[in-house]
Amino acid sequence: MDIFRLDERLARDSVLITKLGLCQLRLQNDKRWPWLVLVPQRNGMSELFDLTPLDQAMLTFETNQVASTLKDLTGATKINVGALGNIVRQLHIHIIARNEGDECWPGPIWGQGTPIPYADDDKHDFMKKLGGAL
Amino acid sequence: MDIFRLDERLARDSVLITKLGLCQLRLQNDKRWPWLVLVPQRNGMSELFDLTPLDQAMLTFETNQVASTLKDLTGATKINVGALGNIVRQLHIHIIARNEGDECWPGPIWGQGTPIPYADDDKHDFMKKLGGAL
Repeated sequence: MDIFRLDERLARDSVLITKLGLCQLRLQNDKRWPWLVLVPQRNGMSELFDLTPLDQAMLTFETNQVASTLKDLTGATKINVGALGNIVRQLHIHIIARNEGDECWPGPIWGQGTPIPYADDDKHDFMKKLGGAL
Repeated sequence: MDIFRLDERLARDSVLITKLGLCQLRLQNDKRWPWLVLVPQRNGMSELFDLTPLDQAMLTFETNQVASTLKDLTGATKINVGALGNIVRQLHIHIIARNEGDECWPGPIWGQGTPIPYADDDKHDFMKKLGGAL
């Protein structure tokens, strides 16, 4: 089996929280929103439908598990889930906690403004809380 | 069983192409991009994880079937899939065919600019082609 290779930009913009059955669960290093990224550990996939049916089912399960946990943890008004990939082609799914009045509300957040990196302590706190809740 | 009630804004901005097992498949009336919307025919749902596990599996199947067909039909560079719902809370999934150089490329399309409605003939042609391909 091929070793999974993570896209360089995903590696640079986010940090690994944990590995689930199919996906790497990563935290986008932008504290403007609680923003997670799931990356199926499969090489050469760019569309959701490139995955096998079993992997599609796994991804659905992991997406919903993570999205539900993120909503509980943050008390967000709405969770945004998106698979775009116009810039980074490696298949990845964004899961973002949104609140009325947050930056860009009610519009989408991708490509907007300038990322604000977490302080190390805040990043670790959030990752620990999320890891514990999952 | 409750009769399914479609959100008024979804009803206004899109037209029904067909009903699948779970979802209404609708065409967003904005010819800037080939833009489809899946609406699970369940009342009171706003998040993907509000659906039962069986409905989640059905939605995954229908999303991937529609996305794959849309890519084949349009030859698009990338399919964008998103469940946002910051404005319209009724659960709905966007499936959009994107191409390099299209309006907003490579950014997301939601909330950008002004919709350009289809001419009736073009709308019916597209709906017929898509319905035939599904």
